[in-house]
Amino acid sequence: MDIDLEPLRSALAAEGIDGYLIDADGSDSDQRYVSDFTAPDPYQTLVTTAPTGQSSGSAGPSEPTGSSESAESPGSDEFGGRRGVHLLVSGLEYGRARTDATVDSIARRADFDYRDRVAEYGPQEGTVRTIAAFLESHDVESVAVPPSFPTGTADGLRERGISVTVESQRIVETEIRARKSGWEVEQIQSTQRANERAMAVAEELIATADVEDGVLVYDGDPLTSERVTTEIEIELLRNGCALDETIVACGADGADPHDRGSGPLEADELIVIDIFPRDKETGYFGDMTRTFLRGVPSEEQRRRYDVTQRAYEAALEAVEAGVTGAAVHDVACDVIEDAGYETLRSDPTTETGYIHNTGHGVGLDIHEQPTVSPSGGELEPGHVISIEPGIYDPAVGGVRIEDLVVVTEDGHRNFNEYGVRLEPRA
Amino acid sequence: MDIDLEPLRSALAAEGIDGYLIDADGSDSDQRYVSDFTAPDPYQTLVTTAPTGQSSGSAGPSEPTGSSESAESPGSDEFGGRRGVHLLVSGLEYGRARTDATVDSIARRADFDYRDRVAEYGPQEGTVRTIAAFLESHDVESVAVPPSFPTGTADGLRERGISVTVESQRIVETEIRARKSGWEVEQIQSTQRANERAMAVAEELIATADVEDGVLVYDGDPLTSERVTTEIEIELLRNGCALDETIVACGADGADPHDRGSGPLEADELIVIDIFPRDKETGYFGDMTRTFLRGVPSEEQRRRYDVTQRAYEAALEAVEAGVTGAAVHDVACDVIEDAGYETLRSDPTTETGYIHNTGHGVGLDIHEQPTVSPSGGELEPGHVISIEPGIYDPAVGGVRIEDLVVVTEDGHRNFNEYGVRLEPRA
Repeated sequence: MDIDLEPLRSALAAEGIDGYLIDADGSDSDQRYVSDFTAPDPYQTLVTTAPTGQSSGSAGPSEPTGSSESAESPGSDEFGGRRGVHLLVSGLEYGRARTDATVDSIARRADFDYRDRVAEYGPQEGTVRTIAAFLESHDVESVAVPPSFPTGTADGLRERGISVTVESQRIVETEIRARKSGWEVEQIQSTQRANERAMAVAEELIATADVEDGVLVYDGDPLTSERVTTEIEIELLRNGCALDETIVACGADGADPHDRGSGPLEADELIVIDIFPRDKETGYFGDMTRTFLRGVPSEEQRRRYDVTQRAYEAALEAVEAGVTGAAVHDVACDVIEDAGYETLRSDPTTETGYIHNTGHGVGLDIHEQPTVSPSGGELEPGHVISIEPGIYDPAVGGVRIEDLVVVTEDGHRNFNEYGVRLEPRA
Repeated sequence: MDIDLEPLRSALAAEGIDGYLIDADGSDSDQRYVSDFTAPDPYQTLVTTAPTGQSSGSAGPSEPTGSSESAESPGSDEFGGRRGVHLLVSGLEYGRARTDATVDSIARRADFDYRDRVAEYGPQEGTVRTIAAFLESHDVESVAVPPSFPTGTADGLRERGISVTVESQRIVETEIRARKSGWEVEQIQSTQRANERAMAVAEELIATADVEDGVLVYDGDPLTSERVTTEIEIELLRNGCALDETIVACGADGADPHDRGSGPLEADELIVIDIFPRDKETGYFGDMTRTFLRGVPSEEQRRRYDVTQRAYEAALEAVEAGVTGAAVHDVACDVIEDAGYETLRSDPTTETGYIHNTGHGVGLDIHEQPTVSPSGGELEPGHVISIEPGIYDPAVGGVRIEDLVVVTEDGHRNFNEYGVRLEPRA
């Protein structure tokens, strides 16, 4: 995928810093994004201020590999915007890095006498000295690093005379990753499609279960949160996605937005289903929530559902480039407060009502920039955000409705086609 | 679970450091282990040198919660060995932390004016100032931190006059987490049992597939690596486990130990299946590998299998407390070299033969201390290690056989009951 590192380079140049260094494994999304690579163990990515494409060290210059997916990306060139991006990987990962990563150069630790350094100084200092030699090979004497950069490496580099400054604006996440390319939008759409298939499996289970003594029963066994979760996860696996956790929360469980839910699902109770899978190949997340009720909703349950749906529709309607996330959040709060429920805006200490933000960015992380919250800044084309208002009270249960959208110049495109309804359908 | 933090405290005391600080989310295994808690966003755990049990700050002293699982643990007391362990969590996590974490005290960020500090100084410095106030409330002016500790926090604390030193021995992982308690051994056993069920599903698929034109076919479709992987993962989900990746690698794919495998499985080819699931509840991993061949093995394939099995048996036989991981690795290398194959010991640059270590620790991380490698130190009772020799060559394929064992005073206990055979059985 093509990327545009210009905002990062401008910031480095303004501070007179030679490069930007990431030391993390591929589970760090900035690392995965900038390096065009992922690995289970830490490796290092260096972005030099001047994208000269020049590389040194005994690895020699590597040809860019892989292919550019979008010729229109602002960073588009034979390096997919990664000219001046240099990787340092272990010998075990070298072959795969050369196949996968379209970057300026890829060096092996062995190119910098890693083995000898570890033998002489131990794994911690030996690794740091290897990284210092890698930086030296690129004439880099000062680096900016993300706030999460390991202190062990930072202190070690400083001892070797390299200046290390924390880049606390998190430009890669906030200004670069937040704006999705056309290719990224396609990946998120693909994950969200799998997500909708999994939601359909869950909805059908709830719709077709028997009701015995107020409890949902499927194939003779109680239909539990755990069982619905398992069937959701199986459907996601069959669609190339995985997830760590899923929320299938009934009644009072659903009134705590962080509760994953457990035990038998009950009739006449609100059931919140929130699914946030990740494509196993691309790493891009999806995120959606629906709330169902099998049986007969009380007047209050029905009212809360309708108010939440109005808040969701109003917030979606408000999304467009140039509007702030804070303004979109206010729109959702307006609807919910007008209906007589508390929000964190009307009462910062409330434990019932609308007790979370309206949305968050979604991409290689399930929660990333921008936010649709009181502190949410201006939305830009290419921002991918969730819109997910809800109303909660342990005495009534929880309602939440969530779609995922990409911001456009004059509105948004919704990744979801899934209907919004309280009564589950088979 | 009870833990024994004494080795960490001794090291802190020797250096005259007031405390040990972790700033990470629950995916950091040291954090999860020491805090008795896990959360998706970063939180802070402080281990004070003197486990006084005294706590301050407006949160007031919290009663320990949860229950101790093993009364025999060296750290056993009403705090499960976590007297002097103090958490700092967000308001969202506070209730769950109080329910889950048996620690000395739990404070909320709000107890230290987090909101005001972020409003005044921004999220990065506001958070650091909150952490500094938390440390001050425990009279802590100097901390040791793990090498992975975020530089943004370290530098920020230093600016506030707190001394931050990297603890590069990684005592928590190396000396504390490496020795498993009885309770931990049970959790790993439980994950490994699920692992064996998943392996049985894979073996049965391969054993009962049809063979058409040299390719395995199941229910009319080619039996691919991806399909076997999906069925493995479904079985694991049904047993409460999850995983990020699985290896089902046939032929030349299996000759690269890092290749996950793809495409149709072929008859008369070696198929390496390596499964490393994690229990979704406890977080403990299992790890096992078997190699199967559907059809007729060549003489060389059979010979490599037999040599690998002999190396695996000899290495297992060598495991006992007091023996070094390096010595166990040498035993496996001896068998493989005696049979005429290269190892990294006989030729550090070889790309065929035995091209990895004999094993690694397994626990809350899939790869942790100790190692069964040229640098492997003395094995101790309670160490949980894999034993996984293999022989690789793209022209022949790969063979690997792996069990997971816990080291005992006079040998080991094997977590696996699964048979070792090249021909798959239904």
